[in-house]
Amino acid sequence: MAYQAPVRDYAFLLRDVLRIESHANLPGFADAPMDLVEQILDGAAQFTGEVLAPLNKVGDEHGCKWNPDNTVTTPPGFKAAYDQMVENGWPLLGVDPQWGGQGMPYVVNLAVSEMLSSSNMAFAMYPGLTHGAYKAIEAAASDELKALYLPKMASGEWSGTMNLTEPHCGTDLGMLRTKAVPNDDGSYRISGQKIWISGGEQDFTSNIVHLVLARIEGAPAGVKGISLFIVPKHIPNAAGEPGERNNAKCAGLEEKMGIHGNATCVMAYDDAKGWLVGEANSGLKLMFVMMNEARLGVGLQGIAQAEAAYQAAVAFAKDRLQGRSLTGPKNPEGPADPIIVHPDVRRMLLESKAIIEGGRAFLFWTGLNADLQANHPDEAVRTKAGDYMALMTPVLKGYLTDRGFDICSMAMQTHGGSGFTEHFPASQYLRDSRIAMIYEGANGVQALDLVGRKLAANGGRAIMSFFAEVDGFVGENAGADEMLKPFIDGLADAKAKLQDATMWLMQNGIANPDNAGAASTPYLHLFGVTGLAYMWALMAKAALAGDQNDAFIQTKLVTGRCFLERVLPDAAAHLAKAKAGSATLMALPAEAF
Amino acid sequence: MAYQAPVRDYAFLLRDVLRIESHANLPGFADAPMDLVEQILDGAAQFTGEVLAPLNKVGDEHGCKWNPDNTVTTPPGFKAAYDQMVENGWPLLGVDPQWGGQGMPYVVNLAVSEMLSSSNMAFAMYPGLTHGAYKAIEAAASDELKALYLPKMASGEWSGTMNLTEPHCGTDLGMLRTKAVPNDDGSYRISGQKIWISGGEQDFTSNIVHLVLARIEGAPAGVKGISLFIVPKHIPNAAGEPGERNNAKCAGLEEKMGIHGNATCVMAYDDAKGWLVGEANSGLKLMFVMMNEARLGVGLQGIAQAEAAYQAAVAFAKDRLQGRSLTGPKNPEGPADPIIVHPDVRRMLLESKAIIEGGRAFLFWTGLNADLQANHPDEAVRTKAGDYMALMTPVLKGYLTDRGFDICSMAMQTHGGSGFTEHFPASQYLRDSRIAMIYEGANGVQALDLVGRKLAANGGRAIMSFFAEVDGFVGENAGADEMLKPFIDGLADAKAKLQDATMWLMQNGIANPDNAGAASTPYLHLFGVTGLAYMWALMAKAALAGDQNDAFIQTKLVTGRCFLERVLPDAAAHLAKAKAGSATLMALPAEAF
Repeated sequence: MAYQAPVRDYAFLLRDVLRIESHANLPGFADAPMDLVEQILDGAAQFTGEVLAPLNKVGDEHGCKWNPDNTVTTPPGFKAAYDQMVENGWPLLGVDPQWGGQGMPYVVNLAVSEMLSSSNMAFAMYPGLTHGAYKAIEAAASDELKALYLPKMASGEWSGTMNLTEPHCGTDLGMLRTKAVPNDDGSYRISGQKIWISGGEQDFTSNIVHLVLARIEGAPAGVKGISLFIVPKHIPNAAGEPGERNNAKCAGLEEKMGIHGNATCVMAYDDAKGWLVGEANSGLKLMFVMMNEARLGVGLQGIAQAEAAYQAAVAFAKDRLQGRSLTGPKNPEGPADPIIVHPDVRRMLLESKAIIEGGRAFLFWTGLNADLQANHPDEAVRTKAGDYMALMTPVLKGYLTDRGFDICSMAMQTHGGSGFTEHFPASQYLRDSRIAMIYEGANGVQALDLVGRKLAANGGRAIMSFFAEVDGFVGENAGADEMLKPFIDGLADAKAKLQDATMWLMQNGIANPDNAGAASTPYLHLFGVTGLAYMWALMAKAALAGDQNDAFIQTKLVTGRCFLERVLPDAAAHLAKAKAGSATLMALPAEAF
Repeated sequence: MAYQAPVRDYAFLLRDVLRIESHANLPGFADAPMDLVEQILDGAAQFTGEVLAPLNKVGDEHGCKWNPDNTVTTPPGFKAAYDQMVENGWPLLGVDPQWGGQGMPYVVNLAVSEMLSSSNMAFAMYPGLTHGAYKAIEAAASDELKALYLPKMASGEWSGTMNLTEPHCGTDLGMLRTKAVPNDDGSYRISGQKIWISGGEQDFTSNIVHLVLARIEGAPAGVKGISLFIVPKHIPNAAGEPGERNNAKCAGLEEKMGIHGNATCVMAYDDAKGWLVGEANSGLKLMFVMMNEARLGVGLQGIAQAEAAYQAAVAFAKDRLQGRSLTGPKNPEGPADPIIVHPDVRRMLLESKAIIEGGRAFLFWTGLNADLQANHPDEAVRTKAGDYMALMTPVLKGYLTDRGFDICSMAMQTHGGSGFTEHFPASQYLRDSRIAMIYEGANGVQALDLVGRKLAANGGRAIMSFFAEVDGFVGENAGADEMLKPFIDGLADAKAKLQDATMWLMQNGIANPDNAGAASTPYLHLFGVTGLAYMWALMAKAALAGDQNDAFIQTKLVTGRCFLERVLPDAAAHLAKAKAGSATLMALPAEAF
């Protein structure tokens, strides 16, 4: 059975948990009543299920081919699907109407993005990165550059890329060498090599807009001397159409473990013509505009691959007849029972479902904060929402991609030996999902961003808001009935542990930064579990207010109990590891490893 | 830096922790003084490092090719390496002198097996499975069949395979359909299709001895009607040399996520000539002779791949310059510090090292029990050792392969983006190691074997022996100094949790078998952590008795502390999950997933 978008779950989240209709006074939301949103979700489910999902394995098998004329041939069917996506207007859904978009809320767009990524992660990266590049231009470029580039990038007529990494520098961008030399006309000549450029070349679009980090001649060393440039593949002519071929070329493709359908390019810039975006030497800040959007998108990929892998595992577990139930045959007419009768198979499936649905809620809840930050009339609401966005982004990126990969691995395990063969989709989900833990800042970098920057920002305002919000919710539900109470208690317990770890970090991380580094990953995971505990409490409450005869509602509550029983117990282990300190880790000289 | 066998760690385990020289009164050990053992280890380290490790990537890239004449071409260099291995006599190391072997202890042979698997897992599977087939023939075949097959299989002149799985049956062998029809001369005609036959065809050896499970015409249905047959590729002639080609053919190869260098064959038997091994209808029991040996071997693969991946990660972390230490530059002359300065990178490396070394010790400790079971003069010792072998086999297979895969994933993470490309070895280790969680009984099947069969066998004698042994050790070390005490306390705590979970299983698993199934995997993991806690206590004690100025000893103690701080805390989470029960998992109908 092929991937089918979990439309009902999106609708439940948007309507019953996040209650987006209560924000109908905000731009975007005003035009997004739930009946329209559900139509959009159904349309996206159909497009992704019928057009993109069947191309997922094709992309994996064929991969992208580099040609000696520096062009790239994408897998069969990808271009036609891209054209159809653009024609249907999917890229415009969340775009500002000023640039031709429909201006739907970000949180609604997240559901569509998840479907794109679940059905075909390698494909979805092309429009996904275009949107990141679009955001950076929108944030800082001149009006002239905006007018020239944004409408075509918003629609998908042109694509966009992010060019950060060089062979000797990834995380540490301060070392980057790509240089920019001013021309007399205000443009620059860009020269250097960039690697791991997703979609750096493809055969879909008439132009590709590279956003390139480079150092203007004479700029300061380190990250303070980095600027951001637009370097189009074809220099737009007077009519704004692709003109002269720029000297920005794909010099080769990376051979990778997964996402074969996405062209991961080595890009060579040789006196390529570029235009500065924003101020000189403000490149790092602008890069984070792209990067933060991309990081949320990568967290989404974690959930998206997990959802698709989970669905494949469920289909296999219902279909595969092998052995008998421990409590007597459940399929007595058949030669064996389907393996979904086994508690340990159900453990893998239900744990997966609990993490996926909790993770999706956490992501959408954060996504709603992006909308509030952008559009809410009350500054205090905007500030709090912005704080949450900043704080939660590394948590979502790190936790959801780590657990997403775990879920893809459990999906393979459910398949048994079949899962290791390439006849079944489990291998591709596992291989594709693995990159999400690495790119846009490896998860260790996310953890360091969380403990080293996000926690302390504005005197810890964001985390204190979060604790206060959770405390408020727990207090409001102090008298919860026996169905809701375990969720409230579980949340209160997780939050207490997160607060304990936060206090430990405050006390020990400042005295010795290595303590913060040593605690960072377990702390991030503890934060993730706590976030999911909050979401499951919200979802349980919404479900308990719904129709208790509805199978969806019943399943939601059972799935939530599985979260409490089989995911939440990790919180104590994360806390213990977070508080273990750095002494042991730092005790050995490098040569002792 | 290529893989280098951890010879010092093997020597420490064998001499200082397991003290194999104290067993010099036993056959095998009498001929294995530590100086000779160290020579053997050095020789194996050289062979695996210089010959097999360089072929690992070659095997991954080239894979095996199936030819229309039913032959298989292995990767370039594999045949020459195989010939060299046979010439050097490596397969004979642990073999009974009766069949031409050197009769070294099993526990010494384990070290050599680990090196083979670390250096080239896909290659090492060929001799590994041959040894499993050899053991089944040795256990039950007629003297005539033994004389004909064992010497050639022991030396590696001929190889062996295990043919269990059919397309519709893997775990549930009761459904198997391959049939055996008696011939007048006492042989049988075997017909059927087998899948996932590792090394079912190759171009190394003049003959391949397939051990095939089949049902003799008229045999009972289910697992009670299964028999084991020798089905040689070439029927030995009167001189015992390969003669007439048997109708046992490789019909194709599986396309897999990893272990590309090993030919995973679809085998077609069409009235192929076969000879019964042991009694008719005793096939399942004999299959377990192969299987139990193979399961320990697979647990070993988990550690072996983890070791190789860990070494690659260490090399990368020392080499890659990126960013600065949180506590100030450590490589001020260079453009950046090596990433091994970062606590979170060290966390990944040291956790890996703690699990690898603890897991290796647990495996070798169990391997020593295999020697005691086979050779000890005291029946009580033999019985206890046999109990341990049976009890620990599923734990080692499940826990070490699960954690081995985690470690390969951490090794990829240490590599950052480079790890996802195929230029670095991390991807291959991750892909290759993943199969170990699945084959020879998926880890969920191991967990069920543990809770459903091994715990209860002989009234729980094995687990009670283990608890008593741990209690005894903890009691003996009650007055441990401050260096040893945390290890003793950690062990006592883990053992108490394992005992708690065991009690819960006794009380709840019998009343409702689904409770046993629901608890099985967390219970297996809790057992694994407890086993490692025991090993780390033994190793710490041995290390504290050693030279405290020796860097190896210092590193061992630091690594052990990392185990206590960052692995042992999982025990509580495993316990909570083990005791969560089955109600939630079983609450939903299949269609709700």
